[in-house]
Amino acid sequence: MSKLLIKNIGRLQTPLGSCSHYGAKQGENQKLDQAAVLIEDDRIKEITSNGTLPQEEADVVIDAQGNLVTPGLVEGHTHLVFGGYRQAEIPLKLKGAGYLDILRAGGGILDTVQKTREASKDELYQKSRGFLDEMLSLGVTTCEAKSGYGLDLDTEVKMLQVIRELNDSHPVDLVATFMGAHAVPPEYEGRGDAYIDLLCREMIPYVKEHGLAEFCDVFCEDSVFDVKQSRRYLRCARENGLGLKIHADEIEEIGGSQLAGQMEAISAEHLIAIGEKGMEAMAAAKTTAMLLPATSFYLGKSYAPARELIQREIPVAIASDFNPGSCPSLNLQLAMNLGYLRYKMTPEEILTAVTINPACAIGRGSQVGTLEAGKQADLVIWDAPDMEMLCYRFGSNMALQVIKKGELV
Amino acid sequence: MSKLLIKNIGRLQTPLGSCSHYGAKQGENQKLDQAAVLIEDDRIKEITSNGTLPQEEADVVIDAQGNLVTPGLVEGHTHLVFGGYRQAEIPLKLKGAGYLDILRAGGGILDTVQKTREASKDELYQKSRGFLDEMLSLGVTTCEAKSGYGLDLDTEVKMLQVIRELNDSHPVDLVATFMGAHAVPPEYEGRGDAYIDLLCREMIPYVKEHGLAEFCDVFCEDSVFDVKQSRRYLRCARENGLGLKIHADEIEEIGGSQLAGQMEAISAEHLIAIGEKGMEAMAAAKTTAMLLPATSFYLGKSYAPARELIQREIPVAIASDFNPGSCPSLNLQLAMNLGYLRYKMTPEEILTAVTINPACAIGRGSQVGTLEAGKQADLVIWDAPDMEMLCYRFGSNMALQVIKKGELV
Ligand SMILES: [Zn+2]
Ligand SMILES: [Zn+2]
Repeated sequence: MSKLLIKNIGRLQTPLGSCSHYGAKQGENQKLDQAAVLIEDDRIKEITSNGTLPQEEADVVIDAQGNLVTPGLVEGHTHLVFGGYRQAEIPLKLKGAGYLDILRAGGGILDTVQKTREASKDELYQKSRGFLDEMLSLGVTTCEAKSGYGLDLDTEVKMLQVIRELNDSHPVDLVATFMGAHAVPPEYEGRGDAYIDLLCREMIPYVKEHGLAEFCDVFCEDSVFDVKQSRRYLRCARENGLGLKIHADEIEEIGGSQLAGQMEAISAEHLIAIGEKGMEAMAAAKTTAMLLPATSFYLGKSYAPARELIQREIPVAIASDFNPGSCPSLNLQLAMNLGYLRYKMTPEEILTAVTINPACAIGRGSQVGTLEAGKQADLVIWDAPDMEMLCYRFGSNMALQVIKKGELV
Repeated sequence: MSKLLIKNIGRLQTPLGSCSHYGAKQGENQKLDQAAVLIEDDRIKEITSNGTLPQEEADVVIDAQGNLVTPGLVEGHTHLVFGGYRQAEIPLKLKGAGYLDILRAGGGILDTVQKTREASKDELYQKSRGFLDEMLSLGVTTCEAKSGYGLDLDTEVKMLQVIRELNDSHPVDLVATFMGAHAVPPEYEGRGDAYIDLLCREMIPYVKEHGLAEFCDVFCEDSVFDVKQSRRYLRCARENGLGLKIHADEIEEIGGSQLAGQMEAISAEHLIAIGEKGMEAMAAAKTTAMLLPATSFYLGKSYAPARELIQREIPVAIASDFNPGSCPSLNLQLAMNLGYLRYKMTPEEILTAVTINPACAIGRGSQVGTLEAGKQADLVIWDAPDMEMLCYRFGSNMALQVIKKGELV
C-alpha cells in the first residue's frame, strides 16, 4: 500500500453534493485553508485543514506551496476521435458561409466523416492520445468521448474501440458515447428515417452487445434529425440499456430540450436557443445542461442562458465540445473563463460545472468530481491561490501538477 | 562561426516588405514549399525551396518534419511588469461594475499601482521573467513592454530597469516604452495638468537621459488624459527624442487617433471606437494600428474595425495587451485566433500583423519580422502545415520549436 501526502495546500476547494441532489447545489463549495490530503493507493484517505496534518506517515510528500487544490477536471462532452482537420474551410467562412451552407456543399462534418473512415485505427489512436496528453496537462482527469464521424458500423466501432483502448492505456479515464445519429451519412441523403432504422436495428444493438458505449447521443436540429427521429433513436437506446444524451437547441429551438426532459435524458447539450418549455421539462427531470461556451465563442453565436438554468435548479456543466468543426479547442480552462466572462457564473458555480456535475452526467459521480475520503484521488494543484484566479487569467495553462488515481502524472 | 540548418520545412511563410512601405503590403506573404534555412551565428544566411538545400555544410541540423515555419512572433504591446493580480475584482464585475466604476472606487489600475510600488525590483523581475518564458514558448521572440504602474519617478524607473535587465538576460528581445501617462496617480487626483507638468519636467528627461526607453505612450481617454494633455505629453516626448505611441479611442472617440496621425505617432493602440477623421489622419501619417482583440474579448466589447483600417492601407498589427486589468492573457496565438474570428482578417494578413508590422512599430523592422538573408534568425517551427491551422485551432500552444538568434530555445 503506497501513501502520498499533499501538504501546504493554501486552499482546498471542492463542490459539495452527490448525484442524487446535485442539481440544488450549483456553486455550493467547501473551502478549506491550510489543508492537506492523504492518499492511499488510488483513493483519498483523509483531508485535514487549518494546518493540521494527518497522523499517518506517507511514502511520498508533495508540497503544494500554498496553492489551490481542486478535484481533477471532468470533461463532459468531446468529439475526441476524428480524422483530418477543417482549417481549409477558413476562406469559405471569411466569405460568410455558415454551418449549414458548408454542410450542404459537402464540406463540414461530412468532410470529417470521410477522413475518419479513411483513417486507420492506429492513426486515430495516436492522434487522440496526443489530445488526451494535452488535456491531462490542463487538469482534465476524466473525459467523455463520442463517436459519430463514421456513420457506418465499421467506422463507428473503430472510433469506439479507439476510445476503449485509450481508456485502457492512458491515465485519463474515458467514458464512451455512441453518436451514430450525428448526421445523416451521404449514403442516406434525404432518407433520415431509413438511417434511424439502421441505427436502431443494427448499430445500437451491436454497440450494446460489445459493451462499446455507456451513452447514446443524437444531434437534434433543423436539417439534421428532427424531434420524432431523435425520440425514436433515444427510445431504442433506452431499450438497449444505454444512457441518453441529446444535442439540443444549438441553432434553433425545435423541441430537443423538451424531449430531453420528457425522456429523462441524463444531459442535454448546447441549449443556446432553449426556451421556457425546454427549461421546465429539464428542471422536472433534473437533466444536466451540458453547456459548451467555447463553441458559442468560436462560431460567434450567443451564449446559453446559464444564469436562468441555474436559477431553475437545472444542474449546469461546462465542457469543451472539442471537435474539428465548431470548436477546435480542447482547452477546458478556456471554457471556464467563458463561464465567468459570458455566462456570468461565479467561480464556485464554475467549479461545480467542471467537476461533480459533468461527473454525474457521465455516470462517474460516485467515483470522481469531489474531494472527500473514499473517492478516487484525482486532483489538480493550480498555479493560483483561489478559483477567482483561474476564472480571471486566460490563455495560460494554470495547472501546475495533476494527480490521477494517486499518482503524479 | 556556427552553422545551423533547418531542413524539411513543408512551408516557409513570411511577409514581404520593409518599414518604408509596409503599410501597403498587409497580407502580402511569400510562401515557399519544401524549404530550408541556413543560419550562420545569429543571422539568416540563405533560404532555399522546392527541395533544394544550401550548398554549405551545417554543424547542427533541425528537421522541421514538413511543418510550417514563420518569423518569430513580434509582440507589439504589453504591460509586462506589474505587481499583484486583480482577480479579486471578479465579484464586483459579476455585479456589473465597469472599468471606470472600479477605477473611481480606488480599484482597477490604482490597485496595481500600489502593488507595483510595493514590489521589489527582484520580485518584479522574477514574475515578468516567468511571463517571458511562457511567451517564448508560444513563439514570441521580440516583445514591447511598457512602464506605467508606478506613476512616480522611482517606480517607473524600477519598472524600466526590470525591462532592461530582462532584455540583457532573457532570450526574448525587449523594447521599452515609458508610459508614465497611464493614469493620474492618487497624489495628483483631479490635477492631471500638474501631473503632465511633472512628467514633462522630470520624468521624461530622466528616462531619456538614462536611456531607459525608446518610446513614450499615453492613455488618451475620457476620465484619464484628454487630447490637450496627451498632445503636451507627446510633444515633450518628441523633444526628448522618444518615439510616440498613444492608447486611443478604446472606450470613446475623443480625438486620440486623430492626434496620433497629426503627431505622426509610430502607432496608436486599441482603436475600438475610431471614426472617419482618425482613420484619415492615421492613413496620412502611416501610423500603425496596434489592435488588441483579446482586450475586446475579455471586456466583452466590440472589436476595432480591422478590415476598414486595412482597406485604407493603415498598417495593422495585432498584440496581446497583456496586463492585469483588462487583458490577463499573454497568449499572442489567442489574439491571432481573434484576428481571424472577429476581425475577419485572412491568415496572410494576420501573419503580417504579428511579425513585420509590429516590428516596424517598435523600431525593429530592419532586424526582425521577415525571413530573409541578413535578418536576425528568429523563427518558429509550428505544429501545423499552414497558417490556416494556426488561425483555426485555438486553446493549444501550436509552437513546436522556437529559434532565437540562431539558437533553439
Ligand atoms: Zn457535440
Ligand atoms: Zn495597453
